[in-house]
Formats: sequence, C-alpha cells, structure tokens
Amino acid sequence: MKKLFFGLLLLVLVFMAFRAGELSTGKGLLPNQKMLHVGIIVEDINSSLNRWVKLLGLETVPEVHVAEGHHTNPTHYKGKPSDAKAKLVFIKLDNIQIELIEPIGETPSHWKNFLDQNGEGVHHFAFEVEGMGEHYFESFNESGMPILQHGGWNGGEYGYMDSVDSLAVTIELIEDYNRKK
Amino acid sequence: MKKLFFGLLLLVLVFMAFRAGELSTGKGLLPNQKMLHVGIIVEDINSSLNRWVKLLGLETVPEVHVAEGHHTNPTHYKGKPSDAKAKLVFIKLDNIQIELIEPIGETPSHWKNFLDQNGEGVHHFAFEVEGMGEHYFESFNESGMPILQHGGWNGGEYGYMDSVDSLAVTIELIEDYNRKK
Repeated sequence: MKKLFFGLLLLVLVFMAFRAGELSTGKGLLPNQKMLHVGIIVEDINSSLNRWVKLLGLETVPEVHVAEGHHTNPTHYKGKPSDAKAKLVFIKLDNIQIELIEPIGETPSHWKNFLDQNGEGVHHFAFEVEGMGEHYFESFNESGMPILQHGGWNGGEYGYMDSVDSLAVTIELIEDYNRKK
Repeated sequence: MKKLFFGLLLLVLVFMAFRAGELSTGKGLLPNQKMLHVGIIVEDINSSLNRWVKLLGLETVPEVHVAEGHHTNPTHYKGKPSDAKAKLVFIKLDNIQIELIEPIGETPSHWKNFLDQNGEGVHHFAFEVEGMGEHYFESFNESGMPILQHGGWNGGEYGYMDSVDSLAVTIELIEDYNRKK
C-alpha cells in the first residue's frame, strides 16, 4: 500500500513538472526571439507618418487610430489607473512593423514621459507572449524590470516593462487573444 | 535623313529612360522595406550583451568584434577622415538582428556623439542598398538627410544618414559586396 502511495505521488510530481515545463517561458525571459515591432514616440504623428511613407515608398498609407484603453483591461501607469491616450499607427515592413505613437494631452504615461525626457525617439521593442500577467510580470520584476504601464484593447493586452536601465530600450509584451496557435 | 535622326534620338532617349528606371531606388527613398537590424548604443557591450542573452535565452553568445574602418573605405565623420572605433556585436533574432555598439575612446563619431548626448539608447535602423554612393547619398541629401558618417569593412560599406530630425532615428544604409543577387 505504501509503495502504491509513493508510486502515485511520484506520478503526480512528474506530471506537475511536465506541466510546469509546458507553461515555462523557455530558456530566456522571453518565450521567443521574434520582434513584432519597434515603437517610436513622435510629436506629430501625421507628419512623421508622411515622412516614413516617402522613405519606404508605401503605396497605401496606414490608418492612424486612438488608443484609449479598454474596460476589460484598463490602462495603469506606475501601478495606478490612468486615462492616458495616444494616437497610434502601424507601418508594415517585410519582416517587422514600425509603430508611431503620439501622446495625447498632458496625462502622465510612459509615452508622455519619454517625449518630455528624450524628445522624439525609439521607445520600445515588442515581443509576443501568452499568459502575460500569470507568467511574465513576476519574472521580469525578479530580473529588475517591473511593469511600468499596461492596458488593453478589444482583443489583447500590452505591458511596458521598465527595462531601459538594463537594455537601453523598453520591452513591450503583447498578448493577442485572437491569435491562432 | 532628318526623320531618321529624330527617330534615332527618340530611341536613345527611350533607352536612357529605361536604364534610369532600372537604376532608380524604387518608389521610396529606400529600395526595399526590409529592416536588417536595429542598432543600440551602449556603455559596456559585454554586460549589455549578457542581459540580452538572458532575455532572449540565446544558446550561443555572439562574438564581439572591433570596427576600426577599412583602407578601401576609410571612416569619415561629418565630411572629415576619422579614426573612430567601436566594439560591435550582432544578436540574431528570428526576423531581424539587434546590433550593440560601444564607442571606443574619445574620438568624435556618430556613436560617441549619441552616447554623450542621449546616454544608452536605440541609435539606428539599417536597410540594405546597392550603389550607395552613386544612388543614395544625393537623394537622401536632397530630402534633408545628408550623410553623417560612412565607412566600410572587408566586404561592404555603411552610411549613417542624418535623419533624426525627420524620422526620430538614424537611417543606416548598408551595402554588402558579397551578397548574391
């Protein structure tokens, strides 16, 4: 009977270790090595976009939209609810996208703070994850890169990790609820 | 006879227009929409590299080497010959590379100038071209983005265009002499 008990216990432990392995974030803090986009903070998104369109010779001008948070995942900046808004546009290149971001108004945010401190410039590199809150906020925090701003849209969520001191650029985690696996 | 002359002239003009089209840089200033790498200026390349290796879970640590110019294409900064040097390393992701750059010494360069003015941060986006000097320096200059620094290595050349005011990031043009077409 004792042997059966320890046998079952071993089986459960092996199963748990297997599941933990499945859920782990891989060998690195990030689960993959694909950069989704590079984000640039700009003062005037329409004139910036116009210059990128000319540089790249785009045939179609991508549409600017407003990020204003989403009720399922309200925007938080430095741990507090925030009504920070920004104009966004994604420019598709062959292998990556460029995101232009213009902060709206004076509400403090990671976007506005960057513009005030640095002026226009490259703000973040984005990577896709699954289970952002459960698996990544804590591991990044333990590696000295706590969550700085997070929020969502109808279909996903994002988090900016405080990685500038460590990596010279903000890492953005992105979770797309609609992505097929 | 006159008709023959104008006929031949027309033929020559059509042929020249065709050749010009062949050599043109496409619809945009850049000939393609593929970003080769993003370049980051850092203070200490080995500790930065170590942090990227952990973030990405790289199995092999890429090798740091020194860029010190090449006799076939000596480094020029702001129009004058320069002995600017930097330590470089390329980190290969699935779809793009990250280049880390640590300026060496106090010699003025686009690298050193960036570090002095901004501290660590994202410095450039790189795109590949063919016929850099013949086709690109002038067209970028006409678009308000003159050449700021250029140089080469055994097998290629690069040029940093002064595009920060316009695009919020330096555009690097890269020509790889060994690339198969």
